[in-house]
Amino acid sequence: MNRHLCLARRPVGKLSGADLTLVETPIPSLEPGEVLIRNTWLSIDPSIRIQLAESTPDGYLPPLQPGDALTGLALGIVVETRNPNFATGDLVSHTLGYREFAIVGPDARTIGGYGAPTRIDPRALPPQWFLGPLGSAGLTAYVGLFEILELTSADTLWVSSAAGAVGLLAAQLAKLRGATVIGSAGSPEKVTFLRDDLGISAFDYHDDPLSESLAGLAPGGIDAYFDNVGGDHLTAALDALCPQGRIALCGAVSEYDGVATAGPPNLFTMVSKGLRMRGFRAGSFTHLQEPMRQEVAGYLADGRLTYRESVFDGIEQASAALVAMLSGETTGKTLCRLRSA
Amino acid sequence: MNRHLCLARRPVGKLSGADLTLVETPIPSLEPGEVLIRNTWLSIDPSIRIQLAESTPDGYLPPLQPGDALTGLALGIVVETRNPNFATGDLVSHTLGYREFAIVGPDARTIGGYGAPTRIDPRALPPQWFLGPLGSAGLTAYVGLFEILELTSADTLWVSSAAGAVGLLAAQLAKLRGATVIGSAGSPEKVTFLRDDLGISAFDYHDDPLSESLAGLAPGGIDAYFDNVGGDHLTAALDALCPQGRIALCGAVSEYDGVATAGPPNLFTMVSKGLRMRGFRAGSFTHLQEPMRQEVAGYLADGRLTYRESVFDGIEQASAALVAMLSGETTGKTLCRLRSA
Repeated sequence: MNRHLCLARRPVGKLSGADLTLVETPIPSLEPGEVLIRNTWLSIDPSIRIQLAESTPDGYLPPLQPGDALTGLALGIVVETRNPNFATGDLVSHTLGYREFAIVGPDARTIGGYGAPTRIDPRALPPQWFLGPLGSAGLTAYVGLFEILELTSADTLWVSSAAGAVGLLAAQLAKLRGATVIGSAGSPEKVTFLRDDLGISAFDYHDDPLSESLAGLAPGGIDAYFDNVGGDHLTAALDALCPQGRIALCGAVSEYDGVATAGPPNLFTMVSKGLRMRGFRAGSFTHLQEPMRQEVAGYLADGRLTYRESVFDGIEQASAALVAMLSGETTGKTLCRLRSA
Repeated sequence: MNRHLCLARRPVGKLSGADLTLVETPIPSLEPGEVLIRNTWLSIDPSIRIQLAESTPDGYLPPLQPGDALTGLALGIVVETRNPNFATGDLVSHTLGYREFAIVGPDARTIGGYGAPTRIDPRALPPQWFLGPLGSAGLTAYVGLFEILELTSADTLWVSSAAGAVGLLAAQLAKLRGATVIGSAGSPEKVTFLRDDLGISAFDYHDDPLSESLAGLAPGGIDAYFDNVGGDHLTAALDALCPQGRIALCGAVSEYDGVATAGPPNLFTMVSKGLRMRGFRAGSFTHLQEPMRQEVAGYLADGRLTYRESVFDGIEQASAALVAMLSGETTGKTLCRLRSA
């Protein structure tokens, strides 16, 4: 038997555990081309919240309906195969997370450009890093900084949600490349983590108006903003950016969890200051996966990059993991480790 | 004696003629380095409206105070000079419009990057074209299309306010470069002008929801949007853009005239579709003035580019010209011709 996390009812406002339910179904037998994967690690990412709403933005996957199983990036072991490209025992990354077993066919649908199951050779590395710093979180940070923002060592960069899976990588990669980095987060513990563990100037966005906190840490303004939050954070960035400044729109977690927001009221500063803003998803830049992995793996190996995980155990905890991550209660990459891992 | 158009009181809502007043002052004698210019043509541009509000966006000139004279691009003849770089009789462009006589010193302040008085050699061309297609309107259209949007002949482009000074140039330059162009405007007459005189697909934004009008003329979506309007037009563009689409933010006339607007509620489509948005002012790209003039003057000379002006006569009409232009009642470039022209 298999257990899937499914949408029980459409969330009103913030996601609660009661909006999700674990459903048990038999595992069907494989068709030609399919592989059966026993999931070992589930990636708990904010973007799935978008699909729980009644409608999704243009360009996004359609909304899930009550009864539908959630999907997400995951790692697992091939336990049965009718696909000659995969052997029993292979470690693969794929997009059918939030379940214990996944059947993935040759035409597996993609999530943000991540699609077909991919064989992973973790060598001596923790395999779950291929969902984090060596996987989509790493690629998102790398693409945002170096492709979208074209970051240089002369830049002062603000990273919001800097204690999150992507943010902590973006903040550290930027610092390692010589940029001046300011991070923001939503609790005193996270700010302490950013300051003491990552060595980054940081503030708690609850403490003072964002504009004051930014002016305090970057009196000359910022050159670039890595946006994981949207909403009032994006508004503050538009005000704080210097002429010709750049914004990478990576996500807008402040807007996912049932809060309808208008866009920034000061978007005209884009004209008055000649600003650039670009949205992106890492899945459109998979050609950069290998250079990213080389750079990030090197930093992890020599200890120059600190990585943090919040791990929940068992498929029964997947819904709690998602609720906690969306509420800002987790630090670093949020993962669900299945008993079989 | 000189007559200046001054701010009488801060406008509430739409600008009215009573918010402005014509003030007469004596012309002081020249200091060393200064020239006295008798203005012949005043450029009536929407952006001055921004400075009539209580505060201006970051990166912009400060607001005018009641009693202050309006400024703007203008052409005039040097009638007296204490600057060896200018001779009596020179035709110059400068930024002290909205007045009959201007005294411009060597440290004249700039407007959007346009600053020091510049000698113009109109040859056989109408001199006021150096405020329009061969001046800031031409450069704005050219920069927006080719520097900001990086337009190609494969693109489907939407130009809003396409019957305005910048829009009609942008729409035609794009078409001449082979792009598919859709223009929008705010009256049946303007739409007829766009269709019949410029040969461009066009719609009146009052007729139907913007998304329907766009879908009708560009069923496959648009690749690029030249924004002169902001507000609901920008929102519609975000919805209509294809993945990897681009937006040039040139101005936001819908937001200037006393209408406070929130930003687009669908800005997240920037992420989901990987869109790019960039604001600009032509004054940051004056190095492109010469290539722009060569291309545009060639099109004007051989009749491939249609140009339209709305001309008001006399400094007494400058305020009516500005009010009419902001209300969308003028087509093409709005100008005020002084009696001495």
